[in-house]
Amino acid sequence: MVRVLSRLPGLGRRSAERAALTLVRKPEGLLQDLIGALEDARDEVCCCGSCGGMTVKGEDPCRLCGDARRDAATLCVVEEPGDILAIERAGVFKGRYHALLGKVSATRATGPGELRLKALLERLESEPIEEIILALSTDLEGDATASYIAELLKERRDVKITRLAFGLPVDSGVGYSDPLTLKRALGGRMEQ
Amino acid sequence: MVRVLSRLPGLGRRSAERAALTLVRKPEGLLQDLIGALEDARDEVCCCGSCGGMTVKGEDPCRLCGDARRDAATLCVVEEPGDILAIERAGVFKGRYHALLGKVSATRATGPGELRLKALLERLESEPIEEIILALSTDLEGDATASYIAELLKERRDVKITRLAFGLPVDSGVGYSDPLTLKRALGGRMEQ
Repeated sequence: MVRVLSRLPGLGRRSAERAALTLVRKPEGLLQDLIGALEDARDEVCCCGSCGGMTVKGEDPCRLCGDARRDAATLCVVEEPGDILAIERAGVFKGRYHALLGKVSATRATGPGELRLKALLERLESEPIEEIILALSTDLEGDATASYIAELLKERRDVKITRLAFGLPVDSGVGYSDPLTLKRALGGRMEQ
Repeated sequence: MVRVLSRLPGLGRRSAERAALTLVRKPEGLLQDLIGALEDARDEVCCCGSCGGMTVKGEDPCRLCGDARRDAATLCVVEEPGDILAIERAGVFKGRYHALLGKVSATRATGPGELRLKALLERLESEPIEEIILALSTDLEGDATASYIAELLKERRDVKITRLAFGLPVDSGVGYSDPLTLKRALGGRMEQ
């Protein structure tokens, strides 16, 4: 159990040991609850066939894709279903989503073929998309993914491709920022 | 000594105690070196009369202000001298600096009068400044300071006022970003 638990992100060997000891102390309590929750997830949660985000079985397309009040002209492309939740928490985006389920990576040998790009191209044919917002990581792999998508869509002059702004995060200061972030914040400076 | 050490930023009481014990273990070693370094700083370091950054005595204006190769038309306004070092490390800004030595704060009762704003207005008269880049914190106090300066200079139509971009820092992901940062990154999105 320790070995399996420590494969969860954020749980090292020591924390996995502590978690395991807590679980076995009273097997009929937390341990049984966890088994139930995992079984529920296995039986209930699945992937939305449209956006690739999380949904419950029997609700595909998901609640967000099926919401007619959301703007079908703006499509926000993210890497992971968790990114959709983060943007929804911000509460300012009213368009639709498309999760790639990964990013182009040289080290982990994830090529563009493994991403949900074919599904993206199909959506461009069937939905009235005018703008694609690339909400990708701001690391090398995110940059590579953004370039790849821009290249893929460069013939589609009817679709505007934008990317989330690089810059200083909220509640931060110049003195705490790394050189690359400062460089991009300076390059992207805006009229006050 | 522990009490004084723990007033340094980043040093809690426990770390201050450990530092103090290290220092007194061999008084002729590290302790004496630290006394020497502090005395040197007291005798040598001072504030540049022009930008408000750090300089050595006898070098006022400082090396950055005195460098004729730097662009006198672009002035980067920062809060603290340490911010100048951070931007210099990024190595992309070739203009001049102006440190306010603080920011407008309601909680710490720092009013605009305590900042180096009069010196800023004087520099606008005597130097060929065309753009002022506000490189301020991205918190409420930084926003208040930016608004105050924009208001102060709103008659000066010959000077462009810009602010560092808000957005995702480099090497970050959407899932790790707070809602406000995502909101501003979406608002400031740029054509890919």
